[in-house]
Amino acid sequence: MPQTTLRRVGIMSVGDMGAGFGAVLRENGLEVYTCLAGRSDLTRLRAQEAGFIDTPDFDVLVTQIDLFISVLVPSQAVPLAEDIAAAMVRTGAHPVYADANAIAPQTVRKIEAIIRDAGAGFVDAGIIGGPPRTGYSPHIPCSGPDTAIFEALGNHALNVRVVGDRVGQASGLKMVYAASTKGTTALWTELLTAARVLGLEDALRSELGESGIFAQQQRSIPMMPNRARRWVGEMEEIAATFEGVGMTPKILLGAADMYTLVGETPLADLTSRDPNPSLDEVLNALEKRLSQ
Amino acid sequence: MPQTTLRRVGIMSVGDMGAGFGAVLRENGLEVYTCLAGRSDLTRLRAQEAGFIDTPDFDVLVTQIDLFISVLVPSQAVPLAEDIAAAMVRTGAHPVYADANAIAPQTVRKIEAIIRDAGAGFVDAGIIGGPPRTGYSPHIPCSGPDTAIFEALGNHALNVRVVGDRVGQASGLKMVYAASTKGTTALWTELLTAARVLGLEDALRSELGESGIFAQQQRSIPMMPNRARRWVGEMEEIAATFEGVGMTPKILLGAADMYTLVGETPLADLTSRDPNPSLDEVLNALEKRLSQ
Repeated sequence: MPQTTLRRVGIMSVGDMGAGFGAVLRENGLEVYTCLAGRSDLTRLRAQEAGFIDTPDFDVLVTQIDLFISVLVPSQAVPLAEDIAAAMVRTGAHPVYADANAIAPQTVRKIEAIIRDAGAGFVDAGIIGGPPRTGYSPHIPCSGPDTAIFEALGNHALNVRVVGDRVGQASGLKMVYAASTKGTTALWTELLTAARVLGLEDALRSELGESGIFAQQQRSIPMMPNRARRWVGEMEEIAATFEGVGMTPKILLGAADMYTLVGETPLADLTSRDPNPSLDEVLNALEKRLSQ
Repeated sequence: MPQTTLRRVGIMSVGDMGAGFGAVLRENGLEVYTCLAGRSDLTRLRAQEAGFIDTPDFDVLVTQIDLFISVLVPSQAVPLAEDIAAAMVRTGAHPVYADANAIAPQTVRKIEAIIRDAGAGFVDAGIIGGPPRTGYSPHIPCSGPDTAIFEALGNHALNVRVVGDRVGQASGLKMVYAASTKGTTALWTELLTAARVLGLEDALRSELGESGIFAQQQRSIPMMPNRARRWVGEMEEIAATFEGVGMTPKILLGAADMYTLVGETPLADLTSRDPNPSLDEVLNALEKRLSQ
């Protein structure tokens, strides 16, 4: 029988995304548990503000919750699953484990195996959009045979939708969608920077004319620099997704290279509270970086 | 003194693009010379239809013309320049040489050196759009110190525009513009194929909604398969262009990989006279190729 009663949720990582999830779920009737051992004072303050219940370690955490949601940078997804699985084995507690990270289907299936070996159910999930806040939820696709308890998040103000019965599909959807947005932005950042460096910006603008993509990228590129470092790992996971179905990883590995380059400019240090730079400022920063 | 009297033009390669240039220039008052030695019967027929004047070899060709225009696949641009330069040296004839191929600025500068060493003037040019025909000209940017005679093509129904005084700028414009169109199409072909293979096509369409890029790519992708093989070399030249200014070549090398993959499907054998396939047929063909 799949577990579908949902009252207590565990969330690690209380970055913008984790804090948003926790705050919205708490506002909407759930108890939110986390584990702050070894975390910074800022993280503790944010968790407190969001009303998270702290637990001393993962062993206690897993015994308190019905569902665990992993929301992290891609590189930490597997190590966290291994730690939580070990806690499940030690304690005999088996909350359902949902991985909502931006990772390739094959990475998700590796995590699924770790969790199932520990005796728990597993949900593949993705997050399309920004952190949840009052009145807003990103799209949250989920897939696999154990989605029932995760679907119950839909009763707590999150926009959850089942996209398939196989683990890997929700993550796959996140990957192809992110390729369409962040992949396109990486390509256009590169070609507009090349035009700037080659003294061809006006000529290119004249050729592009009223191109809809150009208009859209003029809005998208300025929103990217302070997220660029975080996106590098995501581009690598999309590259792995494409390689996993037999296609070239290079386009997205190149996108990772572009976000690494943007991450080496001072614009990457802007916070989410700073105003976005203009497109002109982004291209200037990249031109300057290339001349170094 | 730059040579600006333009009466006789030489064009090698009478593919769609070369034939279109020749026919339009001839209709508009110029004599068009070529060299058909060793070419196929089909090529000879096309050249005859377009009213080209055949010459027995390059030595005769260069003595007959005021301006030579190179329009080829990227890989043949340097060898042709070497052959024409050798003919100039042997004969002492020095028509201005214009390279209108889709090649990186650094490749154009290599060709410039070959031509200048033979004693002739050099024009960097690019072609943005399809082959010229009655009532239509692609945009033809040109750049460098010797553009005067090439600009005179503007009096013969071609849409020529100077975009800078440096060799490399016209080619650079062609490269960044082609990245914006063919690069974007390669990325979207890859991500839509991945969605198809992963069983996520409907879910992705739902996420993309009324995305302007998606709408545009639904029109662009079906026009691509029978050109895909030709575009591989062009993507490699754009990759070299980006690498030449210090950025990653990988995005465009991946685009070359995608066009190689499309070139391995039967759709690449369609001719320009066949109707375009639907997007669905393109994705089907790629899914089938990946399953082999």
